[in-house]
Amino acid sequence: MSKKYQVVGIGNSIVDVLAHCEDTFLSDNGIDKGIMQLIDTARASDLYGKMGPAMEVSGGSAANTIAGLAAMGARTAYVGKVKDDQLGKIFAHDIRAQGADYEVPLAPADAVDETGRCMVLVTPDAERSMNTYLGVSEHLGPDDIDVAMMADSEWIYLEGYRFDGDLSHAAFAKAIEACESTDGKVSLTLSDPFCVERHRDAFRAMIRDHVDLLFCNEHEMQAMYQETSLEACLKQAVKECEIVACTIGERGALVVRGAETFHAPAVATEVVDVTGAGDIFAAGFLHGLVNGKDLLTCGRMGCIAAAEIISHIGARPEADLKELFKAEGL
Amino acid sequence: MSKKYQVVGIGNSIVDVLAHCEDTFLSDNGIDKGIMQLIDTARASDLYGKMGPAMEVSGGSAANTIAGLAAMGARTAYVGKVKDDQLGKIFAHDIRAQGADYEVPLAPADAVDETGRCMVLVTPDAERSMNTYLGVSEHLGPDDIDVAMMADSEWIYLEGYRFDGDLSHAAFAKAIEACESTDGKVSLTLSDPFCVERHRDAFRAMIRDHVDLLFCNEHEMQAMYQETSLEACLKQAVKECEIVACTIGERGALVVRGAETFHAPAVATEVVDVTGAGDIFAAGFLHGLVNGKDLLTCGRMGCIAAAEIISHIGARPEADLKELFKAEGL
Repeated sequence: MSKKYQVVGIGNSIVDVLAHCEDTFLSDNGIDKGIMQLIDTARASDLYGKMGPAMEVSGGSAANTIAGLAAMGARTAYVGKVKDDQLGKIFAHDIRAQGADYEVPLAPADAVDETGRCMVLVTPDAERSMNTYLGVSEHLGPDDIDVAMMADSEWIYLEGYRFDGDLSHAAFAKAIEACESTDGKVSLTLSDPFCVERHRDAFRAMIRDHVDLLFCNEHEMQAMYQETSLEACLKQAVKECEIVACTIGERGALVVRGAETFHAPAVATEVVDVTGAGDIFAAGFLHGLVNGKDLLTCGRMGCIAAAEIISHIGARPEADLKELFKAEGL
Repeated sequence: MSKKYQVVGIGNSIVDVLAHCEDTFLSDNGIDKGIMQLIDTARASDLYGKMGPAMEVSGGSAANTIAGLAAMGARTAYVGKVKDDQLGKIFAHDIRAQGADYEVPLAPADAVDETGRCMVLVTPDAERSMNTYLGVSEHLGPDDIDVAMMADSEWIYLEGYRFDGDLSHAAFAKAIEACESTDGKVSLTLSDPFCVERHRDAFRAMIRDHVDLLFCNEHEMQAMYQETSLEACLKQAVKECEIVACTIGERGALVVRGAETFHAPAVATEVVDVTGAGDIFAAGFLHGLVNGKDLLTCGRMGCIAAAEIISHIGARPEADLKELFKAEGL
């Protein structure tokens, strides 16, 4: 009998606050381009006061992946924490409305921390620089993990950014144990090179002991394995987990399993905002995988979905991804 | 000495909740296409639960106009009510960040009503159907009108939708008196044909007694004057106020003063979402007017700005409007 879920994701629940800015705004405000920085409430308030008019769109890395999977028609659920405030309700609405199950109770309205948000600054080159106030999202712990849900999923998808919370390691361990108890498989995304720097040993141990499928980009892969070339890093990684799916920017993605390497080319598009490109790549890849596609096809599905996301502002799909796959004969 | 402000706008402070939907969603949920319906909290909650994933962007008709004027470089301020909640802070941030003054105190966090919002459903034909929960925005009254601000503005811009609030007539009267006391001028937008139906007599009296410049589209003009043709309606209208600027959809806009009529053609663009087209037309027109342009040029500036707004989702400008005017030699 097939499991209820094909993929269950665990991550930081974030509402993105997206605005265009010039490069000078980044340098004037000490923002490192292209990466994610964690910020506290004071910094969040200061930065928000200085940035331009914005739009708010539900985000969060694993949440974007799960929303993407739901949009593709996968049976999927998401686990992550928001508060019972306006942004929390927006987050919960958006992921459910996309078709994913989302049952984590809202943190009460009188909780100290608010729903997490990320000020995403998009420069004219379409690069995004992320400034994240985690808020209540940080407090997701083992009590929030529904073991029955994890056991009833073919895959779990773990967000690397979640390694930053105190209780997250125990939460991940509980989810992994439940999932593996029913022969479910574990995927992990490395999320960000600086996140890798902060948690390299914990990542490494999880990859070796549990991860079947590792998502990353080339910078994260280099940060993780610190070899002289990307190839050498990937070689090291596939000794430790079965499949590595590594995006390589405008060249697409490399998928490695054992001695095999597949190259999925990027799909040409006008690039407006790269926010969420890696997240939706993972969604397309996993969607292929749970539907029995070969690894090259999985990589291509990831690249097709990524091309849609980067062609507009925001990290959630606007076009019908199922139609896009169909148009490519997939 | 020139006045501090060129235009001060008064309107409903609304955060737009924008989502794509099929036409069947409108009919299944009893939504009339292309217009604005006022809804209560129960209906808002029901509809939000049913609609797809959305994005949140600051909206409000007069607020869009003022944000547009600020983006064009005008000296401008906005008056409208939000609550001290997350959406209220977003609204206040966005209009200030665009460069408009916004000094109305937030309604306290323990107020019953929340910040107003509008569920904007965009169908594949790019038409928008609006479902507005006014919330605290409805309670803007005379106490919120800063007479010094009104007296120090060349124009005030009044939003027709604001006629729906109990205290709004008194608020408008106070604003008009202050503005006219220093030879300021009064502009009004009719907002929506059903809004005209609800308040025809009050609109009519204000137009006759105070309005120097009337904004409308062809449907609102017909609803207002109920003549057999648009031309006959416009003829009637210019007997009662100096200038009428009437948008006529994909044909652009007609500007009428006395016996003169000017036709500003629409600017060709791919239409994605018509939300805010009329609001930004008014911004472009007023920007021309306060900079001493002739009426045809004012109309053209309105049409250029409208083409930008309808080419993307959301009612606030994404491109540099000043550059667009420059590109057209204006």
